[in-house]
Amino acid sequence: MKEIKIGIIGLGTVGSAVAELIRKNSALIAERAGVRLVVAKGCDVRKVRASFPVTRDPYEIINDPEISIVVEAVGGERPALNYILASIERGKHVVTPNKEVLALQGGKIYQAAARRGVFVKNEGAVGGGIPILSPLSHDLLANKISEVYGIVNGTTNYILSKMTEEGMEFSEALKRAKEKGYAEANPRKDIEGYDASYKAAILAAGAFRLQIPWDKVHFEGISKITQEDIKYASEIGYVIKLLAVAKNHNGQVEVRVHPTLVPKEHPLAAVNGPMNAIYVKGEPVGELMFYGQGAGGPATASAIVADIISISKATRASHYSHWKAARIRPIDEIESRYYVRLTAPDRHGILAGISKAFADEKVSIAAVMQKETKGRQATIVIIIHQAREANLRRAIRRIKRVDNVIRVGL
Amino acid sequence: MKEIKIGIIGLGTVGSAVAELIRKNSALIAERAGVRLVVAKGCDVRKVRASFPVTRDPYEIINDPEISIVVEAVGGERPALNYILASIERGKHVVTPNKEVLALQGGKIYQAAARRGVFVKNEGAVGGGIPILSPLSHDLLANKISEVYGIVNGTTNYILSKMTEEGMEFSEALKRAKEKGYAEANPRKDIEGYDASYKAAILAAGAFRLQIPWDKVHFEGISKITQEDIKYASEIGYVIKLLAVAKNHNGQVEVRVHPTLVPKEHPLAAVNGPMNAIYVKGEPVGELMFYGQGAGGPATASAIVADIISISKATRASHYSHWKAARIRPIDEIESRYYVRLTAPDRHGILAGISKAFADEKVSIAAVMQKETKGRQATIVIIIHQAREANLRRAIRRIKRVDNVIRVGL
Repeated sequence: MKEIKIGIIGLGTVGSAVAELIRKNSALIAERAGVRLVVAKGCDVRKVRASFPVTRDPYEIINDPEISIVVEAVGGERPALNYILASIERGKHVVTPNKEVLALQGGKIYQAAARRGVFVKNEGAVGGGIPILSPLSHDLLANKISEVYGIVNGTTNYILSKMTEEGMEFSEALKRAKEKGYAEANPRKDIEGYDASYKAAILAAGAFRLQIPWDKVHFEGISKITQEDIKYASEIGYVIKLLAVAKNHNGQVEVRVHPTLVPKEHPLAAVNGPMNAIYVKGEPVGELMFYGQGAGGPATASAIVADIISISKATRASHYSHWKAARIRPIDEIESRYYVRLTAPDRHGILAGISKAFADEKVSIAAVMQKETKGRQATIVIIIHQAREANLRRAIRRIKRVDNVIRVGL
Repeated sequence: MKEIKIGIIGLGTVGSAVAELIRKNSALIAERAGVRLVVAKGCDVRKVRASFPVTRDPYEIINDPEISIVVEAVGGERPALNYILASIERGKHVVTPNKEVLALQGGKIYQAAARRGVFVKNEGAVGGGIPILSPLSHDLLANKISEVYGIVNGTTNYILSKMTEEGMEFSEALKRAKEKGYAEANPRKDIEGYDASYKAAILAAGAFRLQIPWDKVHFEGISKITQEDIKYASEIGYVIKLLAVAKNHNGQVEVRVHPTLVPKEHPLAAVNGPMNAIYVKGEPVGELMFYGQGAGGPATASAIVADIISISKATRASHYSHWKAARIRPIDEIESRYYVRLTAPDRHGILAGISKAFADEKVSIAAVMQKETKGRQATIVIIIHQAREANLRRAIRRIKRVDNVIRVGL
């Protein structure tokens, strides 16, 4: 039986889970896939106990002529990029769940891989163990995918779920997420939407088969969401979720990440805690959703080992470098519905002024609800029918008193 | 570019949708997959207008040496079986969404295919366009799948959704389903669970890589579910769904289809109308759910064309005939929780008698709720903690007054 020697750079949660899965299910994989996977070498800066040789020098893996597939599980942009490019240069296939390096440097990586004739595979980079990139490029190949959106960050979904289910404020829910291990000590990349924006770019590329420059992806985090917003959204039939959204308008693409009011009856509204789910709209397949654990070593290892097997059977080429670059629609040009919460003096005429500011910018109001009065201040929630982002922003700058703006619907 | 000639037997909803998809997305498929798909011939007993030659004789397709892939879209056990076997005999690959012939005659079909060295593929047979069999055998290949269960029949899910959301009785909801085209004129195969049982057998086989004899699959339909059951289930936090359930206990397999009380917070509870969803539990991937349109020509065509492409790239072998036959656990030996609704005279001592009948059969009661009294008759709902099916059935035979029994939980 064909034997495939694998090197794993980075033996943290994900890297060590990959080694463990290959060790534990080795016989099962051999029987099903007809290849024997062997972890020939691992690399970590820390001392790690393992059943295979471990080095501190990644180039001992990269330069090992026996190793044909490198798993890059270091994370972050650098030095991961160097390890990936050096592995490709030596003719090795690369499997990586590293969304950051793929979103930021995917162009360079896939170009190098195409030049050298090797595979770079990344199912683990979006949705952990959820099969999504592979179904998009194989099972849904005959479809025109028009939309793909979903919950791709477990940390923020856990926080929003806690805020919704238990009435916590953001800071308390974040604390809870840290205690549970769902948020890192420095949670900025999750909370502010960076992580989701990397995944949005990768997901959009896979769905539309277009190159997506990450720096054109508009993203916002969840730190401004308050318990008030959660409550008002609920009253009008919505839950607030941080969504990654990608739509293809005949080659012009919008890719964005932001809190969104999702109708309670939508399947994404029921995706709670650290779970992830990705919604796909295609023609002729209709609407699909893929749900599962979006993170964690063992789940991500499931995706990485599937990629290793598919490479070892050499059946699934990676075409990213042949894809055209997408024309990304600027966020200002995107139309959406909006929820706007503001605080205003509770007196006659104030609403007329606000309404005029919106009307002057061609932003039409669908509903106004006066929610609470504190002293002489009233909380007002306004639902905007449909407006261009740029117009809405201009109106809001004129009104000034706005506390929060969240997009509505999908 | 490699050209693949396809013959389609049966130009009903699904067959004609396959032809239409190949026609419409031909360029896109060629660009992505590197093969050109051509419908060389179609067959139907009715007169059909098409952009390709149509015959009434399926053997004009089966005997055509130019055609390498046959799509069997006739449905039902026979004559579909004959067409499939004859196609295999002539060295043609077969793609079919026909769950009935696969569940009933899969052994024979896959054996013939293995002998002749051709592929038989069936992604469209379960969950319409939802990618599920392919992810199970490729993306989740490194996992031990322990459970797979879900909503695989759109007709019954539509009916149960109507009963739940709008308080309809079964017969009214069925009438509505017929009007909407979600139920056939003779809905027996859907309503009584046949369709779901075929899919359960196919799903279990794909998940566990074992041959599943359909005649060992226990199945029940939904015609006995009343509005009372829906209401009482809701009161205790559940919705009623018709589930196909397959579990693997180290090689001993249980496969069954029956109405089930699903906790409202479970993602399957939010799957409404004609939608399908399949839940998968695997190690290490954890829990996954695949959701989408479970039926309809265009969605199913998406799966069929993906199968055609994968065959034309000759990358994905079908191993069914090499799999071991599963040892199917008899329904009597399966343990479950149960909801039991019964009508009893509203007088002292009656509950003692019922309790004794359960206790004598070692069936322990978790909760008893007296729900309604009509004249001298009371409706009692009993939740059974955990019991063997055989013991529960014996207890119920002794009590006699039982109106309905539904399994609880997953």
